[in-house]
Amino acid sequence: MDTDNQGAHAAVIGAGGGIGGALVAALAADDRFVRVHALSRNPAPSSGRIAAGMIDVTDEASIAAAAGRITEPLDLVIIATGTLHTEGAAPERALRELEAATMARQFAVNTIGPALALKHFTPLLHRGERSAIAALSARVGSISDNRTGGWHSYRASKAALNMIVRCAAIELGWSRPQAICVALHPGTVDTALSRPFQARVPAERLFDAARAARQLLDVIDGLTVQQSGRIFAWDGQEIVP
Amino acid sequence: MDTDNQGAHAAVIGAGGGIGGALVAALAADDRFVRVHALSRNPAPSSGRIAAGMIDVTDEASIAAAAGRITEPLDLVIIATGTLHTEGAAPERALRELEAATMARQFAVNTIGPALALKHFTPLLHRGERSAIAALSARVGSISDNRTGGWHSYRASKAALNMIVRCAAIELGWSRPQAICVALHPGTVDTALSRPFQARVPAERLFDAARAARQLLDVIDGLTVQQSGRIFAWDGQEIVP
Repeated sequence: MDTDNQGAHAAVIGAGGGIGGALVAALAADDRFVRVHALSRNPAPSSGRIAAGMIDVTDEASIAAAAGRITEPLDLVIIATGTLHTEGAAPERALRELEAATMARQFAVNTIGPALALKHFTPLLHRGERSAIAALSARVGSISDNRTGGWHSYRASKAALNMIVRCAAIELGWSRPQAICVALHPGTVDTALSRPFQARVPAERLFDAARAARQLLDVIDGLTVQQSGRIFAWDGQEIVP
Repeated sequence: MDTDNQGAHAAVIGAGGGIGGALVAALAADDRFVRVHALSRNPAPSSGRIAAGMIDVTDEASIAAAAGRITEPLDLVIIATGTLHTEGAAPERALRELEAATMARQFAVNTIGPALALKHFTPLLHRGERSAIAALSARVGSISDNRTGGWHSYRASKAALNMIVRCAAIELGWSRPQAICVALHPGTVDTALSRPFQARVPAERLFDAARAARQLLDVIDGLTVQQSGRIFAWDGQEIVP
C-alpha cells in the first residue's frame, strides 16, 4: 500500500461481520493506516484510529450518506458484507427449493448492495496513487468451478457480484489508472455464515477471522493494476469466473 | 432431437418475444414436433400444432400453473424471456447510473424468472430419452469476455443466469442423465430489445428472428450431454463464463 506523507486511510463496509471486524482490527494495528472507517449497521463506538459509522447496504441513501461523511481520499476500501442464510432460509440443495423472495434477497444483499457501495465509494479512491477496492466474493461464485451444484441463489449472487466488480474495474481504469478493483474469496472462515457447514472443512482450512483478515490484506498488498477486475482466493491464487 | 413414436413435444417460455415467437414458428414447421406449447403473458390463439398458454415468469404461481397444464413429457424447453430495458431505464454506462430498483428488476426477469422456469419445467423433461432445456443468455453475460464494461445490471443478471443453468445441469445429471441444460447466446437479433444498439452491429451479424431461431435450434440439435451446463453462441461456439 503506497501512502502519502499523512498516512493511509481505509474503509471497511460490513465492519460488524466476522471478517469485516477482523479487517478493521488488522488495519487499525497497521502503522501505515492513520484512519480506518468501520462502517456497519450497528456501529461500535469510535476509538483510536477507528472511526465508526453507520451503513446499511440495502439502503442506497445510507450508503451515500456514509460515503459523504468521508472527507479524505481513501487508499483501501473493503466491502465485506454478504449473506448465505437469508432470514432463516438455508442455501438450496435442489431447484425445487428455489423461492423468488429468497433469491431476490440474496441479490439485494450480495450483489446490489456491494454494487451500490462501488458506486459511492470508488469516487473516494485516491487519484494519482495506488489504491484498492475489494469485495468479498466466494469460490462457489465461480461458474466454471461449480461441479457439485446446490446453493443456487448464493452462487448466482456471487457470480453476479464478480461481474459487477469486473465492470467497476474497467471503469476505474478510465478515471483512476492506479486503482485496483477485485473480488476476494476469503476461504472458509469461522463465522456465523459458515458455521453450519464447517464439519466438511479440514481444520487447517478453517481460518479464524483474524487469520483470514491478514491473508486477505496480504493478497491485496501483492496485487498489481494488471490484475484488476479478477477474482483472487485467500492464498493469492486467481479463480476463473 | 430423439423422439418416441408419438412425435416430440416442445415448450417455449416467452413466446411473445421476437426470438420466442420465431422459435415457436420454427418448431411448429418441424415435422418431428407434434405439439409446441407457446407460453407467454398474452397468448395468441392456439392453432395447428401450437398450444398457446399463459405464463408470467415474475409470478411463480403462473409458472407452476403453466407447467401443470402440460401432461406429456417434453423433449425440448426453451426459456426465451429476458429484458434489457427495464421500464424505460436504459442499460447503465457507468457505476453512477446504478439504481437498486432497476437492478432488482433485471434479476427478477433475467435470472429469477428463468430459475423458477427451470424449477417447474425440468421435472417435465423426458426420462430415458435425450431431452434439452435451454435458457437464452447473452455473450455480455460472460465475465471473462467483459472488456468494455457498462450494462452492469444486464451483464450481472445473465452471469447469474449462467450459474443457475450450471446448477440445473448438474442436478439433471442425477435424475435425467440424457437431459441437456445449456445457456444460449442468440447473437444480435432484430427485436425490440436490441433496436437501440443495432447501429454498431455489421449487417451480416444482425439476424432476423427466424434465422436466429433456426440457428439456436441447430445448436441445440448438435449438443451432447457432455456439454450440459455450458454456454453456447448461435454458431455453436462455447462461451467461457
